[in-house]
This record gives sequence, C-alpha cells and structure tokens, in this order.
Amino acid sequence: MAATGKPVTRIARHTRDSIYVRDRNLVEDLIGKVSFTDMIYLHLIGQPPTRAQSVLLDAVLVTLMEHGLTPSAIATRMIAMSSPEALQAAVAAGLLGVGSQFIGTMENTALLLADLIAAPGGVQARARAVVAEHRRDHKPVPGFGHPLHRPDDPRSPKLIALARDQGVPGRHIAALEALAAAVDDGYGRHITINATGAVAAVLGEIAIPTEIMRGIAVISRAAGLVGHIREEREHPAARFIWELTEREVAYAGPSARPGPNDKEGD
Amino acid sequence: MAATGKPVTRIARHTRDSIYVRDRNLVEDLIGKVSFTDMIYLHLIGQPPTRAQSVLLDAVLVTLMEHGLTPSAIATRMIAMSSPEALQAAVAAGLLGVGSQFIGTMENTALLLADLIAAPGGVQARARAVVAEHRRDHKPVPGFGHPLHRPDDPRSPKLIALARDQGVPGRHIAALEALAAAVDDGYGRHITINATGAVAAVLGEIAIPTEIMRGIAVISRAAGLVGHIREEREHPAARFIWELTEREVAYAGPSARPGPNDKEGD
Amino acid sequence: MAATGKPVTRIARHTRDSIYVRDRNLVEDLIGKVSFTDMIYLHLIGQPPTRAQSVLLDAVLVTLMEHGLTPSAIATRMIAMSSPEALQAAVAAGLLGVGSQFIGTMENTALLLADLIAAPGGVQARARAVVAEHRRDHKPVPGFGHPLHRPDDPRSPKLIALARDQGVPGRHIAALEALAAAVDDGYGRHITINATGAVAAVLGEIAIPTEIMRGIAVISRAAGLVGHIREEREHPAARFIWELTEREVAYAGPSARPGPNDKEGD
Amino acid sequence: MAATGKPVTRIARHTRDSIYVRDRNLVEDLIGKVSFTDMIYLHLIGQPPTRAQSVLLDAVLVTLMEHGLTPSAIATRMIAMSSPEALQAAVAAGLLGVGSQFIGTMENTALLLADLIAAPGGVQARARAVVAEHRRDHKPVPGFGHPLHRPDDPRSPKLIALARDQGVPGRHIAALEALAAAVDDGYGRHITINATGAVAAVLGEIAIPTEIMRGIAVISRAAGLVGHIREEREHPAARFIWELTEREVAYAGPSARPGPNDKEGD
Repeated sequence: MAATGKPVTRIARHTRDSIYVRDRNLVEDLIGKVSFTDMIYLHLIGQPPTRAQSVLLDAVLVTLMEHGLTPSAIATRMIAMSSPEALQAAVAAGLLGVGSQFIGTMENTALLLADLIAAPGGVQARARAVVAEHRRDHKPVPGFGHPLHRPDDPRSPKLIALARDQGVPGRHIAALEALAAAVDDGYGRHITINATGAVAAVLGEIAIPTEIMRGIAVISRAAGLVGHIREEREHPAARFIWELTEREVAYAGPSARPGPNDKEGD
Repeated sequence: MAATGKPVTRIARHTRDSIYVRDRNLVEDLIGKVSFTDMIYLHLIGQPPTRAQSVLLDAVLVTLMEHGLTPSAIATRMIAMSSPEALQAAVAAGLLGVGSQFIGTMENTALLLADLIAAPGGVQARARAVVAEHRRDHKPVPGFGHPLHRPDDPRSPKLIALARDQGVPGRHIAALEALAAAVDDGYGRHITINATGAVAAVLGEIAIPTEIMRGIAVISRAAGLVGHIREEREHPAARFIWELTEREVAYAGPSARPGPNDKEGD
Repeated sequence: MAATGKPVTRIARHTRDSIYVRDRNLVEDLIGKVSFTDMIYLHLIGQPPTRAQSVLLDAVLVTLMEHGLTPSAIATRMIAMSSPEALQAAVAAGLLGVGSQFIGTMENTALLLADLIAAPGGVQARARAVVAEHRRDHKPVPGFGHPLHRPDDPRSPKLIALARDQGVPGRHIAALEALAAAVDDGYGRHITINATGAVAAVLGEIAIPTEIMRGIAVISRAAGLVGHIREEREHPAARFIWELTEREVAYAGPSARPGPNDKEGD
Repeated sequence: MAATGKPVTRIARHTRDSIYVRDRNLVEDLIGKVSFTDMIYLHLIGQPPTRAQSVLLDAVLVTLMEHGLTPSAIATRMIAMSSPEALQAAVAAGLLGVGSQFIGTMENTALLLADLIAAPGGVQARARAVVAEHRRDHKPVPGFGHPLHRPDDPRSPKLIALARDQGVPGRHIAALEALAAAVDDGYGRHITINATGAVAAVLGEIAIPTEIMRGIAVISRAAGLVGHIREEREHPAARFIWELTEREVAYAGPSARPGPNDKEGD
C-alpha cells in the first residue's frame, strides 16, 4: 500500500500510444526482442533472467508440458466435446487438476529443501532427520518415488545436469542430493528423485518463489492442454472414453450399508 | 480412428525409462535443447517451427501476455483472495474471460482473412465488398478499431514489420493490409488495425489453425495471470476492489418494472 | 444506471444486524419460510413464484440433476482425484460442460418457440415452415430426437402433463406440440420431444428468460456433481477411468499427412 | 470395488424407456413428487430426507445463496462481461471462490464439533481446552466472530432455533453452544457464532458428511451467481468496476526492493 492506503500495481500501464509492462516499453523493448520464456520470468520476478535462469526455466517448462492422457487431459477433452465453442473453458477445466496430488508435491519438496538449507546443524544431518521422521510416520518423502519410472525417472538427472552446466549456485540441488542420499540410506534401497522433486530444486535455483512454483506448471500445462483440444477436434476420443466409462463402471444398486438416518436425525 | 474403430493419440507415450512427446525423446531431444515456444509449436502443429515461425510465435505470446488490471486479472485476484490454497483455480477463473468480447475477435479476423485470400475475384475486390457489408449492417469490421490506442495501436505495425523481416509468405498480412485500405476508404477516415487483428494475420502466416488461435492467447494469459497472483500476495488489491465495488455500486431497491407474472403464469 | 451514471444493484444489502435479499429480510422473511426452489425463483425473477411456478421449477430442477457418468461427471471426477482439497474446483470443471452440445439446445428450442408464438400467420403455419427449413438444410430441429430414448423420451410427456395440471397459460407448450406435429408430419415418422425441448417449454411457461435458462441447468447439475464427488471419495472410479483411457486410446505415431510447413512458412 | 476389481456406481442408470436415480424411477417417483431440496438430499445421502432434514437443508440453502457483491459475484460478473456466450463459465469462475477463506471455515467448525462430541472427558471440558489452545496460539476459533455483524450474526440464532423446532437430536448444536459459552468465557467478552459456524452444526444434525459440506454452499451459490448474471445483463456493472479498478489501483513503478538475483543466480 502507498501512503494513501490505496493498493498499487507494478505490472503494467498504458498511454494512448504506448504500453509498458514491468516498466519496459512493450513495443520498443519486448516484442521481437525477448522470448516468451524471458517475458514470463520478467513478469513473475520483476527483472529479466540471466542466461542460466532462462535456459533452466525453458527446461522446466518443456519438461512439464505434456504427459499424454492424464486426468487433466481427460477433463479437458470432456469439456472440449461438450462446449466446443469455449476453448478457454476446456483448458480451464484441465488446469483445475494441477492440485495437490500430481503437482502440489513440488511445493512440499521446495519447502523441505528450504528447511534443509537453513538447518543450523548442516544439510546432511537435517536430511537424515527428515527421512527418519517420514519413515516413522509412514509418509513418503516429497519429491521421491514414481509408480512407473524405476529405478530412475529419466527427467531428474537431466534437469540436475543442466543446472550444473549452467553453473547456478546449487544450494537447492545440493540439498536435494543430500536428501536423496539420506533416502536411499534410510530405506535401504534406491528410490528415484522424481521429476517434480528435480523441478522444485531447479526452480529454487532460479529464484522462483515457492508460493508460485505451481504457476509454472499451470503455464506449461495450458500449452499441453491446447494440444489435446486440437487432437480432439481432428481425431475425437472423448465420446469413446465416455462410452467406455458408461460400459465399464457398472451400476451396482443401492448400498446395503446402514444409512446415516440410522444414526442421526429424528 | 484406426481400423479397429478405436480412437488413437499421436501426442505422447512412455515406457519405464523413456518419455516421448510427438515422437521425440523428451529427455534426449527436447529438455535443454528446445525453447518452451518451440515445444509449444511442436506440440500444437506436430513438427518443429522454422526459425521465422519461432520468432513470430514468441512475438505473439509476448504481445498478449499482460494488459494490467483487465477483467480477467480482476477475476483471478478475487479467486486468489478467496482460495489462496488453489493457485490453479485463480488462473482458471481469469482464463474463462478469454471469450468472445476481447480475444474472440481474433478468430473472426482470421476467418475474414481466409475469406479474402480465397476470393475468386481477388483480395482487393473482396475487401471492399466486406467493408461495404459491415457498413450496411452497422457492424464493426473484426480486427479494426481500439477504444484507447488512436490513431494507431502500436503493437500492430510492430508485429507486421516483424513478419516481413522474417520473410514469411505474407498472404495473410497482404489480406489484412488490403482490408485496412478498404476500411479507411470505406469509412472515410483512418481506423487502426488493432492488436487482435494483427495477431490473427501473424498466426495465419505461421500456420496456426484458426480453431486453436484462441489457445495461443490462453497460454500467454496464463502466464500473465500467475504474475497477478504473485503481486496480489505481496501487495494485495482484491479486498480494496471488493470494498470499492460494495461502496460504489449502490443498492437501488426493487425494480418498478412490471414483473413477468403480469404477463405470464397463472 | 441511476441518474449519476453509476450502476446499481437490486439484489442484496446488509446492515449491522440485518441482511436483505430482493428487499426481503433474510432472517425474518426467508430462512425457514421459503424453500430453496422458491428462493431461487425470487432471486432470479425478483418476485416470489406462484404455486404453479414453484411446482414446475422443482420439476425441471429434479429432471436435470443427474444423468450418471456423463462427460461433466467424468470431468468432475478427474479433478476431484487430482485436487481433493478443492471440491469447488471439481464442481466447476464439470459445470464447464453445460455448453452448446448437451444443454444449449434448450435455448435454441426456446428461441424457436418464441418465434412460433410471435408468428403473424399463426403457430401451425410457422411450425410447418420451420420444419421445412430444417429439413432443407439437413439440420435437426432443436428439442427433438434422442439417441437412446426411442420412440419417446419419458421425461417429456411427464413435464408437459405437470404443466397442464398446474394450469399454466400454455402458449409455449402449445407451440411445442404444434412443432411436434409438424416434425412428425414433415419427416414422415415419429421423432420424440426430448427432455431439453420439454424443459424449454416449461421454463417459458414460468417466465424464466431464455438468456438464463442454461443457468437452471447449471444450478441443478451443481447438485448432481457434488453427488459424484461424494461417490468418488467412497468408491473411487477416476483412476480406473484414467487407466482404461491410457490402455484403450492407443499411441499411433506421427501423422503421415503433409504438415502445414509444406504449404506455409519459409 | 466389486469382486471383479472394477469400480461401480450407485447413482443412476437408464434403459430405453426409463431413467433411475438412486434406484427410484425418475419419471414415476421423482419428477412432480419431490422438491429439488429433497432430490439433493436423496442424491447426496442415498435416501430421502425426513421432514426435519428437508426443512433444515432448505434453511441452509436459503441462508447461503446470496450476499451481494462478494468476490465470487465480482469474478462472475467479470467473466459474464468477457464471455457472455458461456453463462456456465461465469458461474464456474465465481464458484472457484468457495474456498478456504469464506466458506472453508465451515469444515473446520464441523471437525471441531465432531472432536467435542467424541471427547471422553465430556463436551464442556473439551470446549474449554479447545478455546485455551486457540487463545494460546493466537488463532481464531472456527465458526466465531464476524467483521460486520456484531454483537450477533442474525442468521445463527435463527438456524439454531429452527433446528430445535424440528427436534433434531441436537448433539452438534449442543456442542456448538458449549463452545460458544467457552469462547465468551475464555475471551472475557461475547463473540458471535457466525453463519458458517451455525451452518456447520445444522448440517451435522442432518447427517451431511463434513467432506461434502462445502458442496452445499457450492449448490446454493450457483443459484446466487446466476442471479448476478441476470442483473449484469439487464443493468451492467462489470465495466464500471473494471474502470474503477484501473483508476483507483495506481501504477507505482518498479519495486525498489533488492531483486532475487541479488541473492540467487549466477
């Protein structure tokens, strides 16, 4: 808030013949001069990325874009079939799936890495303690394990190698690797760093705040979902999925369990 | 559909240790090797962009990302305040505003340009006829006019100049310029090509199909809206807008107009 | 707008100790005194329903609530699995499917009935002309035909009988029946009035404006989708549908069709 | 899952000439015979409500429908202006605001009441302990306090009185009242039970599971938001709110704070 008590914005302004975004002249300084990725960084962080930050943000956006017929893609195709006149609604429906179960673990990993980095007793000791706590509570360590990609998720070493190549400071990646060593040691077997875990470390390296990390996935998936809408229009699958669902999820009659009225109500 | 009658997908597949998107190995061929923009093009069109296509898609994505406190941004901020735990929902709410009133005219312009290009009597003659029809019906010509940016929207000449620099074939841009000449002539005064109109021509030049053009705006705006969420968290404005609205939109009591029951019902 | 040029609202206001909706005291006059259905009518139309209007609005809301594993329900379940912490997002995703393909025909039917009612030459003559136009253009008549419920959609005669029982004026229903007679005659066989068609006539009878008819379906489906979320939590089906989709929609490799670059670009 | 391992549904099924919802024949047993509210209860709970359950669900749905120009309503109006062709998208945008900040406290209250009811040492003792814990942690007790309605939210005593009139068992209401006494005692002043707190107790009385309580608010608000869309079409306010926001939320130039690159990056 300014002295007047009114909120302010630092994002954009325009006059009759100019548009400014983050204090740059859109037409003179940005269009044709910066990539979409660099524009995203400038907008989210308020200053242009370094070369390393640009390369790594591109890598993350490319990594997260597309995973085939995921729940988000299925939701998007259902809405694209139902409301073909509103492409934006089909994308929005799919994006609503970027929640706690598939992407949200990125934030939990980022918080954990920040905790390790700040630990007074050192990263290694804190990593061992964190793994011990998760084992005791029978909880998975965020950023580790994958149902399919075993023993290793191929995206993770690639992202980590890229970050090293770019010479970023590496505190988040060092923390992730300390955690990985403690995980393998604590569980007595190798558990992969999954893509979400590696992404959390790389986004930490390029100064994306934890509270908008999920937003990077949202931007990337928006592009992926537009691709599914295009395929759905050319080679429709939604009606087939609908009919398959109606056939394979059987009607089973009312439940035999005692109803809530047996316990509650007058 | 394949011979079996089942639908197929050409988007992505994975094995235990590899992920393929559009038949490229994600880890070997894409991460760290292609930009987000090129990945978007590959995904939407099925093949990598040429250099010119890449430059122009970047330019369009940069152009459309951010316009300040638009209706979409206000919707996103309202939901970000109400459901801060679900960033994806705040983005989705704003994206639902990428509809007919502010972006949809892009598609109408694209259809008009396609109509001009295909006209048997030539682009100029068809442009004049189209302008005459719109004047007769008192309808605005899609892609022309702007409430603020007069006499010219600064984004349009920039995008058109970039496309020329890149040496794209130029049929869509030639059609847009023929239409612009016919508009100025028909209305007897200069009316600007607006950004949406120029974007439609440039996306036509780089072979983005009309039916997913709106999707390019959706992807770009997703990034813009994440930026608004970040600012809302650091410098909240949503509650102020809410209180302002409650104060400035007055309660006016019931309408005096005759109710529908005076005409209908028993 | 009031004389000041500022917009006004007639919906609700509150003081420190009272809340008014549509000029009624919420606590004194509405809670415990009116049904949800009557409150919906009051809010949408600005005055309480007659008994007949209340009965028929209930009937429509009950009719539209639930249709099993529809595209909307599948979208809702996908998002409920992905973001279980945001129930509202799962409902929103499904509601986005209340678009042109499954519910929007209600509005087209309503517009057609209004056209018949206003026809100077009488309802019957206009009905025959409308059917002839649709046959000539090979377009289905909105409100007629159903892929499964043949020869008759059981909901339609029920809704029409209820409206008659309630003694509503019947101009919309009379128009629908004239249209049904013209359809059967024009196509030379019986084509059912579908539920959407009957709903359009009944909502017309109770003075719901065409431009918010779709909203009645949205309200009703919201309730249906909450039911799907509850079942999904107790007896999950979403992951099964996802795995089924991944297995049954096969990867087919890149398309052999000539790419857009063969025609466009440099 | 059934013995086959496939998931089942108990919601709806249909044949060529019949539709069944929750094992009732839609046309024979439900349309024209049950209210929308009773249909909602049947669908969510799997059996029809008692008279008391029906009366109280109506009361809650009427209570929550409409609160004027709330953040949800503003979001809905922004999208209604931007995408007037997609009414469902405008409703969905507003519903995304039914999250943790304004409605989610209902669930926290419900969990707290369940905790009190199950406390081995009795409701009163547990209530005092809970209040002491919240005071110690400087956290508000869920379901208590209101920024405007002081000393009392008028909706709460009304809902509680209605529940008593209907003779429901009253364990949730008794727990809420024990908590209210402990709150006033612990803080040394009267703090109102807010509407969300009272709703949580009443929904507990009528056997709505905590995990779908938010869904009751979603259904009710869907109706409220359709009302805002209708008013927006007849008496537009969205553009005024947009212009007001652009004028009152000032552009403030780039932040002077040290950027993240001063701490991170290469």
